[in-house]
Amino acid sequence: MKTPITLLGLGSMGRALATAWLAAGHPVTVWNRTPGKEPAGAAVAATAAEAVAANRLVVVCLLDDASVESVLASTDLDGRDLVNLTTNTPGEGRVRAEWAVQRGARFLDGGIMVPPAMVATPAGFVLYSGSRESFDEHRAVLSAVARPEFTGDDPGRAALLDVALLSAMTGLFGGIVHAYAVTAGEVPPTEFAPMLAGFLTAMSGVTPQGVGERLASGDHTTGVASTLAMQTAASGTLLRTAGEQGVSTELIEPYLALMERRVAEGHGDEGSSGLVGGLGVTAGG
Amino acid sequence: MKTPITLLGLGSMGRALATAWLAAGHPVTVWNRTPGKEPAGAAVAATAAEAVAANRLVVVCLLDDASVESVLASTDLDGRDLVNLTTNTPGEGRVRAEWAVQRGARFLDGGIMVPPAMVATPAGFVLYSGSRESFDEHRAVLSAVARPEFTGDDPGRAALLDVALLSAMTGLFGGIVHAYAVTAGEVPPTEFAPMLAGFLTAMSGVTPQGVGERLASGDHTTGVASTLAMQTAASGTLLRTAGEQGVSTELIEPYLALMERRVAEGHGDEGSSGLVGGLGVTAGG
Ligand SMILES: NC(=O)c1ccc[n+]([C@@H]2O[C@H](COP(=O)([O-])OP(=O)(O)OC[C@H]3O[C@@H](n4cnc5c(N)ncnc54)[C@H](OP(=O)(O)O)[C@@H]3O)[C@@H](O)[C@H]2O)c1
Ligand SMILES: NC(=O)c1ccc[n+]([C@@H]2O[C@H](COP(=O)([O-])OP(=O)(O)OC[C@H]3O[C@@H](n4cnc5c(N)ncnc54)[C@H](OP(=O)(O)O)[C@@H]3O)[C@@H](O)[C@H]2O)c1
Repeated sequence: MKTPITLLGLGSMGRALATAWLAAGHPVTVWNRTPGKEPAGAAVAATAAEAVAANRLVVVCLLDDASVESVLASTDLDGRDLVNLTTNTPGEGRVRAEWAVQRGARFLDGGIMVPPAMVATPAGFVLYSGSRESFDEHRAVLSAVARPEFTGDDPGRAALLDVALLSAMTGLFGGIVHAYAVTAGEVPPTEFAPMLAGFLTAMSGVTPQGVGERLASGDHTTGVASTLAMQTAASGTLLRTAGEQGVSTELIEPYLALMERRVAEGHGDEGSSGLVGGLGVTAGG
Repeated sequence: MKTPITLLGLGSMGRALATAWLAAGHPVTVWNRTPGKEPAGAAVAATAAEAVAANRLVVVCLLDDASVESVLASTDLDGRDLVNLTTNTPGEGRVRAEWAVQRGARFLDGGIMVPPAMVATPAGFVLYSGSRESFDEHRAVLSAVARPEFTGDDPGRAALLDVALLSAMTGLFGGIVHAYAVTAGEVPPTEFAPMLAGFLTAMSGVTPQGVGERLASGDHTTGVASTLAMQTAASGTLLRTAGEQGVSTELIEPYLALMERRVAEGHGDEGSSGLVGGLGVTAGG
């Protein structure tokens, strides 16, 4: 028999997970605060405590860390393998790990890197950190919902990488939204799409590598192809064009302002890596 | 003999262009406000007027549109093919085109999409718009510095696409900078780089297409994998994590705020394409 799973939380993501595990042939026991969301084929527990008692492998996918704490408070975690797929901060992940271990559980924190619609597709992946033993033992089960990637023993690591990637995506999406807004009414969006995708794909392929190498070496100037001074020189044109097109500059202004600040502080000959230190942190890892 | 070229402007970009054309065997006549920047092998004109008089094909690469107007004011453009590789707004491009045509020139506006160090490499491309005849006649010459792409007769089109792509890049770079800042001191940058590049490359490949299709159809909800409501749910975690790591949220906050505004206005079931209309424009092309 395939490993039986307990799943707490049947929001959009929880339902997608339950459906994927059921489709893969795992017995699944579910509980949700609000009843009526159970997918066909799942065993329904009356309480969270009953659900946790049913299986050794317990997955939680709730709104946030506060709901995880309150739901699990009434359960006996002793001897359980707890996999927390609720989005949280690194700090919350570490606190929850300690809390779970004190209650006798092994703890794995996971950050799901796809929307529910892409669970159980090749596009999906989930970042894990925490108990390596628990990860190794359940790797096959976890693979049924999305490609699992173990990122380290620190239970906060998965959340940190999850949030870092989502934050980067936020920037990318903001750029895409601004670009479509500025061309709206003049360039057909389907004509612009391949050009935008091609340009951003090329940039996405090389920029993280270049910035990462400079942060690692601490040398932000040698061999920089496009310095902050050069990038800043075009800022006025970006802002004036938005003005001509009647588009708010709210999505691009903070980056332009940060560049200007760094150039004024004497970092004009550095590349984009020189901006990291301007966000209030000491760069390097 | 290869087409002789007049080039006005020997800043970092102008020098890269001159060097590339000289290397490709074109006779190049140069002029720059400040003397002493001429590359070896170029003919040096004493004035802009003398430089323009020397050849039919005249390329300008100066700081901004104001410097183009002031430098060309003293020259006779009659019968010239003017190629303006100075970064400008669409409006400035259109005004400069009319101005040049009134003076008897054919006008091509160009937006250079690479830094000087990547001129004459396969990575480079230049967006052109304006006189199709002039473009067709000089395509081979233009190809020597970077792959030329003709984007339309509207002389403002190249600048519009140029600025739209640079704006999108600004968003992408902001996301990358924030992601490195938030992981600084915990994840070695060279370890994070391939993960970040892989994630952003995948997103860059699919997101512009999806957003473009929704803007074209005007249907922002059907088949959306990740709605604004879903994306907004994670906002708090992104902001709290930045707080835990001591990183300023200035680069990610505007996009999160825009999403929240749109969700509050009833667009929660839309995808990212639903944000375009929130920047003060009517979406669609
Ligand atoms: N959706 C996505 O695109 C996506 C992508 C990656 C990661 N995630 C993460 O996955 C997790 C779940 O997301 P989702 O999309 O499934 O959210 P959702 O649809 O809003 O569902 C939230 C779930 O949490 C439960 N819940 C909320 N507050 C609770 C409380 N105080 N006590 C007990 N249960 C509570 C809800 O129960 P009720 O049914 O009773 O309200 C529901 O099961 C989140 O951490 C999210 O960040 C989501
Ligand atoms: N560098 C890049 O990464 C890059 C990338 C794409 C596009 N571009 C565009 O290429 C153009 C040139 O950029 P660049 O990097 O070469 O700039 P740059 O190094 O700052 O050079 C500016 C040029 O403009 C001249 N100039 C400035 N004000 C002038 C005035 N009032 N009258 C006459 N000449 C004036 C300068 O002459 P002096 O030598 O006398 O100061 C110099 O030749 C800009 O529009 C830029 O946006 C640059």
